[in-house]
Amino acid sequence: MEFIINKECFNKAISDVSHAVSIKTAIPILSGIKIVANDDCLTLLGSNSDIVIEKTIPLTIDGVSGLEVFEKGTVVLSAKYLSEIVKKLPDVIHVKLNGNQSVTIKSNEIVMNLNGLHSGEYPNIPQIDGAGYFNIPSVELLEIIKQTAFAVSKNETRPLLTGVNLSIKENKLTCVATNSHRLALRELPLESKVTGSFIIPSKSLNELTKLFNNEADTIHIFITESYIVFQTNHISLFSRLIEGNYPNVSELLPKDLKTIITVDTKTLLKGIDRACLFASEWRNNNVLIEILDKSKLRISSNSSELGKIEETQSIMSIRGEAGLSVSLDGSFLLDALKAIKENEVKLSFGGPMRPVLIEPSDNSSYRHLISPVRTY
Amino acid sequence: MEFIINKECFNKAISDVSHAVSIKTAIPILSGIKIVANDDCLTLLGSNSDIVIEKTIPLTIDGVSGLEVFEKGTVVLSAKYLSEIVKKLPDVIHVKLNGNQSVTIKSNEIVMNLNGLHSGEYPNIPQIDGAGYFNIPSVELLEIIKQTAFAVSKNETRPLLTGVNLSIKENKLTCVATNSHRLALRELPLESKVTGSFIIPSKSLNELTKLFNNEADTIHIFITESYIVFQTNHISLFSRLIEGNYPNVSELLPKDLKTIITVDTKTLLKGIDRACLFASEWRNNNVLIEILDKSKLRISSNSSELGKIEETQSIMSIRGEAGLSVSLDGSFLLDALKAIKENEVKLSFGGPMRPVLIEPSDNSSYRHLISPVRTY
Repeated sequence: MEFIINKECFNKAISDVSHAVSIKTAIPILSGIKIVANDDCLTLLGSNSDIVIEKTIPLTIDGVSGLEVFEKGTVVLSAKYLSEIVKKLPDVIHVKLNGNQSVTIKSNEIVMNLNGLHSGEYPNIPQIDGAGYFNIPSVELLEIIKQTAFAVSKNETRPLLTGVNLSIKENKLTCVATNSHRLALRELPLESKVTGSFIIPSKSLNELTKLFNNEADTIHIFITESYIVFQTNHISLFSRLIEGNYPNVSELLPKDLKTIITVDTKTLLKGIDRACLFASEWRNNNVLIEILDKSKLRISSNSSELGKIEETQSIMSIRGEAGLSVSLDGSFLLDALKAIKENEVKLSFGGPMRPVLIEPSDNSSYRHLISPVRTY
Repeated sequence: MEFIINKECFNKAISDVSHAVSIKTAIPILSGIKIVANDDCLTLLGSNSDIVIEKTIPLTIDGVSGLEVFEKGTVVLSAKYLSEIVKKLPDVIHVKLNGNQSVTIKSNEIVMNLNGLHSGEYPNIPQIDGAGYFNIPSVELLEIIKQTAFAVSKNETRPLLTGVNLSIKENKLTCVATNSHRLALRELPLESKVTGSFIIPSKSLNELTKLFNNEADTIHIFITESYIVFQTNHISLFSRLIEGNYPNVSELLPKDLKTIITVDTKTLLKGIDRACLFASEWRNNNVLIEILDKSKLRISSNSSELGKIEETQSIMSIRGEAGLSVSLDGSFLLDALKAIKENEVKLSFGGPMRPVLIEPSDNSSYRHLISPVRTY
């Protein structure tokens, strides 16, 4: 294996695949990056037990030549050191594999030898030939993830709930995440030949968000029996799926709603954020919301040690009874409000001990449900 | 105590004095900020066992009124919560002390009660009336600290060496720090009526750097028996002094130098930085520097596990013999080079086991000494 590569290009690819590499791993080869030099491209691979990231560097990008391959071959190099080294080198980098998996890296008058590992021990990537797929604009995919992935359970005792459920039927994509105290649901019209229900680890989606953050392209999504693959032109993220049947959540969405109010999203978010300061003493960050009358809302919380906070805010419109109060986990409500980009938010109450439904005031494609907390 | 204050102004003052507050402290009152409302100003105080920071807010700043005091008084409030609360409040803040050290903080329709502590328990600040003092431009003071404070010992077994020695005599200020393996020395002409030698904890100087980072003013420095005080218009930092006699370091500076070379500072810094990557396996980050001939320098390091690195760099000028090599702690050399802002650096060698002197090529006000490491 021997090639010359532009520094920036190599650096970006190493940084991208490093998202999948864990420094601390029981399997030494997984702390490395697999480099494959082909006649027409260089491929880098990083992987852990959940995800695999594959990045391909072509010979030319936008007509500019950035890679020249002299000899095909493959090797695995420490992700940590390769990344540090390449960052600290000037310009153009010459990489050559010698015997015994030793790799010579040269740049100007700098010569180094880095001990590598045999790539034969590196796990194979899942095959996606013939797998069903659909396409989604990256902006929409990232928004869906941002609106749901935070709501998963952090508790590993029910592994199903640590993932986000993606279900596709009748040209509609539904994304759901819940920790059984709160639930986030997002729907999107989608043309797809694939149908079914899949559970994706939330960690994989978080990595996906970082990796595809600046991609403006369409993302191709392939689904195999145990993997989901997100792919753009030069990069692929493979995530394992969580096995099992995700609970049916549609019946949880409340039907008999006593009171529906509309308020300013940012104002409510700031008020809840302040109240949370005094709620940290409670196990559930208890924040009390009271609908005082047709035009006023009160937000309060207290702590025996610190003190208390109380503020009133305006209700923009109300349907149903006033005089209702409910105690919620303030941090859950904060998360829900942060996921709403619309200026006005609608809160629907079924009663003091019934879940509260939170959604943008004129867009029901995103819905969030929070169960009240007991205050005694 | 009752006053109304502009939010930004209050927030900045809280943030400034918080530098001296440790959240985890065995003395609960020190986790708070002491607030004193006077007729003509508000004073905030934060302190720990090493330093005290005092900030004064006048009634008007640049002709703009930002503070109105209705009733004098004093109280101690939790630094952590006061800071969080003030950040999250809009505009103008109304603060009022009630009975039982409870404080009401109001802003628009937001009302909170924060439990405070009696300020009588708060330690008194050291008196500086009649203390000797000198003045120094803040830019110069910060540069001196940046060039020396990093070189102190991190080991508490010799407390003297954890401080920076400031000595003033014959209109010259000398700043020295050493951990007994390396030494940084900076001199500055200074008009001062105070003379003597003082040891300041490096932690205090690091806090000073953060606090006075954006101050363009002159800093007044007062020295009392056990304190040094750095003061500008509205802010004072009091630091305790370390007791004892600092070792005399002037005799350590080498006299018989065999080889003196001049090289480009940034190029050398980058080379040493790269070599350090492979040196981390050694206890002393061993990096080997070899003067190959009159025009070439070689930098190298190796690790049995990772591999090795080697590069050659140009020598700009040389006096004395070539063919010399010395093994240094690469991280010490990096620190020394980072403290030099001049483009060219002079390295003076006394022999393979003699300390290396590092200084800007045409400015001897800053000198750095590093002892070689044994490689066997």
